Amino acid sequence: MPQFMDVHHGMTGITPELLKEAHQADLDIQDSEGMIFKQAWADPSTGVVFCLSEGPSADAVRKIHERTGHPADEVYEVPVEV
Amino acid sequence: MPQFMDVHHGMTGITPELLKEAHQADLDIQDSEGMIFKQAWADPSTGVVFCLSEGPSADAVRKIHERTGHPADEVYEVPVEV
Repeated sequence: MPQFMDVHHGMTGITPELLKEAHQADLDIQDSEGMIFKQAWADPSTGVVFCLSEGPSADAVRKIHERTGHPADEVYEVPVEV
Repeated sequence: MPQFMDVHHGMTGITPELLKEAHQADLDIQDSEGMIFKQAWADPSTGVVFCLSEGPSADAVRKIHERTGHPADEVYEVPVEV
């Protein structure tokens, strides 16, 4: 299944609790788009958040993140990994 | 140890072999700055590459990537993870 890295901006001050909540919201509805959200990393000082996921398309990534209230600013398919 | 996500732009067309080579070049000298480069993901179509690492500072991330000929365009400390 294709793998994606998406990037969110503007989440300055994000805490471990808030990231966990946002990630859980994605997990709760990810099946509806065939997505699997795997990991997320956040920089509270710049407000940048990275999410790694697997799923059918970048559009599916966008749909889940939109419905949970934190739309992705950038979505990249990352088929090359090391 | 602090964790970092750095981002490279302009690596359009990057292949699995080239990413592996670039990553190995980082691994070969990472000890000199106390860095541990863990994973990397690449989107050959947009040329964006993400690297996850651990180490003492963003400056150490930059130094290793500069010395191996692929300077990072952005470096974020990502202390929050899920």
